[in-house]
Amino acid sequence: MSTSPSTLRIESLAIGDELLDGRVQDSNTKNLGDALSVLGLELQGARTVPDDRALIIAALQEAVARADVVVTSGGLGPTSDDVTAECIAAAKGEGLRFDEPAFARMSAMFAAREIPMPESNRRQAMLPSSSSSLENQMGTAPGFITPFAVQMAGGAHTMEVWSFPGVPREYEHLRDTFLLPALQARLAAGAPRLLVRRTLRCLGLAESAIGERLGPLERDNPDVRVQYRAAFPEIVVRLVLTAQGDVAAVEARADALCAAAHAAIGKSVWGVGDDPLEVRVLAALRRNQLSVATAESCTGGLIAKRLTDVAGSSDVVLGGVVSYANTVKTAALGVSAATLEKHGAVSAPVAVAMAQGARERLGAGVAIAVTGIAGPGGGSADKPVGTVWFGLSTSTSTTSVLKKFPDFGRERVREMAAATALRLLLDALDGAM
Amino acid sequence: MSTSPSTLRIESLAIGDELLDGRVQDSNTKNLGDALSVLGLELQGARTVPDDRALIIAALQEAVARADVVVTSGGLGPTSDDVTAECIAAAKGEGLRFDEPAFARMSAMFAAREIPMPESNRRQAMLPSSSSSLENQMGTAPGFITPFAVQMAGGAHTMEVWSFPGVPREYEHLRDTFLLPALQARLAAGAPRLLVRRTLRCLGLAESAIGERLGPLERDNPDVRVQYRAAFPEIVVRLVLTAQGDVAAVEARADALCAAAHAAIGKSVWGVGDDPLEVRVLAALRRNQLSVATAESCTGGLIAKRLTDVAGSSDVVLGGVVSYANTVKTAALGVSAATLEKHGAVSAPVAVAMAQGARERLGAGVAIAVTGIAGPGGGSADKPVGTVWFGLSTSTSTTSVLKKFPDFGRERVREMAAATALRLLLDALDGAM
Repeated sequence: MSTSPSTLRIESLAIGDELLDGRVQDSNTKNLGDALSVLGLELQGARTVPDDRALIIAALQEAVARADVVVTSGGLGPTSDDVTAECIAAAKGEGLRFDEPAFARMSAMFAAREIPMPESNRRQAMLPSSSSSLENQMGTAPGFITPFAVQMAGGAHTMEVWSFPGVPREYEHLRDTFLLPALQARLAAGAPRLLVRRTLRCLGLAESAIGERLGPLERDNPDVRVQYRAAFPEIVVRLVLTAQGDVAAVEARADALCAAAHAAIGKSVWGVGDDPLEVRVLAALRRNQLSVATAESCTGGLIAKRLTDVAGSSDVVLGGVVSYANTVKTAALGVSAATLEKHGAVSAPVAVAMAQGARERLGAGVAIAVTGIAGPGGGSADKPVGTVWFGLSTSTSTTSVLKKFPDFGRERVREMAAATALRLLLDALDGAM
Repeated sequence: MSTSPSTLRIESLAIGDELLDGRVQDSNTKNLGDALSVLGLELQGARTVPDDRALIIAALQEAVARADVVVTSGGLGPTSDDVTAECIAAAKGEGLRFDEPAFARMSAMFAAREIPMPESNRRQAMLPSSSSSLENQMGTAPGFITPFAVQMAGGAHTMEVWSFPGVPREYEHLRDTFLLPALQARLAAGAPRLLVRRTLRCLGLAESAIGERLGPLERDNPDVRVQYRAAFPEIVVRLVLTAQGDVAAVEARADALCAAAHAAIGKSVWGVGDDPLEVRVLAALRRNQLSVATAESCTGGLIAKRLTDVAGSSDVVLGGVVSYANTVKTAALGVSAATLEKHGAVSAPVAVAMAQGARERLGAGVAIAVTGIAGPGGGSADKPVGTVWFGLSTSTSTTSVLKKFPDFGRERVREMAAATALRLLLDALDGAM
């Protein structure tokens, strides 16, 4: 807020007992903030209130006086706890109206599923008198917009309350279909401008270190905002360029800035764009017409899980072996007992033998292997917790790589190891294979 | 809020730009709500404001007038953005004081790490004049409590603002060490009472269905609160009994209520207590002196990952095979091509053959196998998305089980399949093996 004031004052108001008693984590507010940041906007505040009429009305009145746009989330269901529409009407001093089109859509949804519609659902079509309804294609409750005219010291201030269901899927559907385009249009009307965005995805550097490297770029380009998002173990860097004029020229400048940022950050950037690491690995496998197999010790299946998280991955992912015990490294991957005895399970020769075994036995074009110490036990002075060996096997080469991750706890060591394995695979596939 | 008003009015105030622009999800508010619910308390509201002095002071003044306790989170760091202490002092109309003990602890922490302390850290020892500091053993910023006396229509109202760092680990440390015991003491002083809690963990029933089954128990026992938490695909049910008198008698009554709830919900309860499913499976394996291996198709490594999420699992988890491709089911697990051809990969004979293959080839005491259709593609009228076969193999028996999960999307089908596999394993180990 201190660095880049919004042109529009926007607040979030989440409604529901379940958000305050520990049952449900409200993710709509954070995700709204994220979506707004892409437009160069920010939330000036957020609030959560229980399903209590007096508290909801008071919170609405305060927010209406402070903001240009208030986005409410929740309280649109069919039960008596759901009082958002009546509270908005009460805050404005008006009544409710029955929204015929919203009710017709609702009835059609029940008819399509061949379920009789409970009488209580009729309630969801009761909206503030002056509101306009928003078609919700993901659920029965319509969204709606209620305009307010507030008397201020400096004259009348007009603002809007946008109301969405609390279910994230429905909230995001209405947010993306109606709210964001409306905000974008309003920004464009005020001062025609282009917002162009580039995303860099990094692994291996802390946010503060990346921030230092991008400091000069940010200082020299006041029309560029640099945003950081930690998606452990990755850091996602977004450059948002606000400009006017020729689209092609602005896009070219964004590309040049992105290349400059890439050069400044260096090799910890593994990709540009929105795709996660596993999606990029799958694309690189298809480009190379290669299948993949995994051999995992300390990651215990996490790499295979990430690759198969992606729908349609079965064309290039054959599977893998989780060789947690040494006996399985021998039985399922053919790592010799002598190698295990001589070098220990966490070693370059074992990582390489695991990768070779997985590639050959599972019949894959390329295989990645991981063996390391995730902790909290099992570390030594020689091989502390965080020590991980990676093995990579192709038809023409084998590679082993050692990483010493900081001991941020078992879960994080495993996440760092899985992401690093995917990155090694991607680099190998993008190289001269 | 509508059903059980708190005896203390508590609000949360989270401070920080990063909570409003999409960078960071605030988890402190939800976790505070959860911790309070164990004491039978609830948050009456929560708010998030940016690092902006005017907005923080206004939000503080509003909350102070409404609540008995306000818990702030964030804004205690050493940089110029961190203004929580000065805003609390301003809201109260007082200045800051230098807290010598807090500064001494901070200096000692830097000395222990052999790092010179930046001059800016001195700022973290500047607290509101009337506040008391709280020792933070997890970081440099002390927490603090500032008392307020507010003039109300009905006389003076005294309340407290508790301030914690935003880092969840430090926030939870101070919350659990100082705030919760203070609240508990205040409740006890008002009306001496015991709070006894029992937790039931369920898989396979929706929250609303469990709620219906526990309705009579809740109606007949007004001193019992039933809380539900969705930890997909599980539902965690908590019974909180508020009572007075003899501890042993209250504990016995809680046990009886827990047994009654268990009987009412039925076999979808897989456990009582706080341990997650994988921890219970590992304990059951150790009790039976058996090792386990996995054979996963549609879950792609998720079962092995969950088992190895637990530190120390290597004594009973040997590993497993992710046989995503049919060729791997044959090569690594010995499933015959004829069986695959005749029954299809998603079938009882293949599930059983996968489990047997994993158990025999990996040398495990028991093996669990999963083969199914996670979607979005691959479904048919006969075997729609959500169709999953499970195979279980021990030295004396093989079992196959079919589940047809609703198609809630690929990720959720995989999560339901992994949880069901762990539950089948647990039931088998708890049975007569």
